[in-house]
Amino acid sequence: MNSRVGAVVPAAGRGERLGGGTPKALRPLAGRPMLLRAVETLLSSTLVSQVVVAAPPTLVDVVGQILGSGVRVVPGGAERVDSVRIALDALDDDIGVVLVHDAARPLTPAKLVDAVATTVLDGHPAVIPVLPLTDTVKEIDAEGRVVRTPPRDTLRAVQTPQGFRRDVLRAAYANRDLPVTDDAGLVEALGVPVTTIPGAEEAFKVTRPADLVLAEALLANSVPRDGQR
Amino acid sequence: MNSRVGAVVPAAGRGERLGGGTPKALRPLAGRPMLLRAVETLLSSTLVSQVVVAAPPTLVDVVGQILGSGVRVVPGGAERVDSVRIALDALDDDIGVVLVHDAARPLTPAKLVDAVATTVLDGHPAVIPVLPLTDTVKEIDAEGRVVRTPPRDTLRAVQTPQGFRRDVLRAAYANRDLPVTDDAGLVEALGVPVTTIPGAEEAFKVTRPADLVLAEALLANSVPRDGQR
Repeated sequence: MNSRVGAVVPAAGRGERLGGGTPKALRPLAGRPMLLRAVETLLSSTLVSQVVVAAPPTLVDVVGQILGSGVRVVPGGAERVDSVRIALDALDDDIGVVLVHDAARPLTPAKLVDAVATTVLDGHPAVIPVLPLTDTVKEIDAEGRVVRTPPRDTLRAVQTPQGFRRDVLRAAYANRDLPVTDDAGLVEALGVPVTTIPGAEEAFKVTRPADLVLAEALLANSVPRDGQR
Repeated sequence: MNSRVGAVVPAAGRGERLGGGTPKALRPLAGRPMLLRAVETLLSSTLVSQVVVAAPPTLVDVVGQILGSGVRVVPGGAERVDSVRIALDALDDDIGVVLVHDAARPLTPAKLVDAVATTVLDGHPAVIPVLPLTDTVKEIDAEGRVVRTPPRDTLRAVQTPQGFRRDVLRAAYANRDLPVTDDAGLVEALGVPVTTIPGAEEAFKVTRPADLVLAEALLANSVPRDGQR
């Protein structure tokens, strides 16, 4: 396995649950787009040597200007899977390890990026950061009746970046017909073991308006570490 | 079924994940204890006619002073189940419907309390408010390896208040040896159907420090509706 690490960020979605009209990835957070924050975190890892972003096709130039010359921006596809596949193909040939990261996790700490990449480099073909769940989870049927309560201590909420050997992720994405909930799910379907490592609370996904409130509040409370906010 | 509705709040826990030393329920939020906010929401429902709080045994008097004369405060037990059982027994005899509510969900809207109570009164023996999950969830084994990805559209995160016919909840709690993850889980174990209704984002549980930041930020952003903050 080539040990050069690249990262792809599918950011072509609209993020309708967030409201406001702007494509989700470009929503500002304390004045700077979520996508920019997410990409900067990836670039701040000494392990990551290339970042490819899949942007809405009409906004490739705008996104390129926002992110600057160190990042390759490609037109994304209709669905997240399409965008990941396109971005994956745009990585340099000698990238052997790929991180897939959500633009909507703008407060992800750099040390989590390093931990995921390091665990793949240590020989795990697929690595995901996870956290225990706060709420009890129920399985329900189509009528909203509770079917089952899975034991909470066996459940984990999955975050990003998720890390993969590039050949494994490419094989996973070659199967177009798999039902996709996440990248690791595709890899699991191949029978490849998926390893979990501890996630980070700050890596929460900005999905609903309250998540924006939390992200802004955390940024307002935090001490700037690098002169940037 | 007697249609008088009561609510119990088990608030004897320490909430160690939150840090800070104060019992979790008494942690202030924009200046007022979480427990007080949660109880006020219950009392603001026209359907709820009695509230019983299980407090840490050494703090029964303090909690009684905080909550005022309209609320019955009883010494809680070692575990949450014990506190619920004690509070349940302390409700008036003619209470036929019981809501069990977390003190740690201080921003729960009153309309959610009404919705849960109304659905029980409409003939559903057990009712829980739920929300879809934001993150993909994995089942893992003891080594942290992913075992399975349950389909996300069949999973729901459970909130409170949870509503029950009192006889059903009493029967559920009579079985001391059941593994408990939540009140509805005990009822499911009896074979009683559990109905889900839409939850509310604001009803999130304050578990980790970031949850406190979010709750404070939401309170700071909200327009006071009743002169109280």
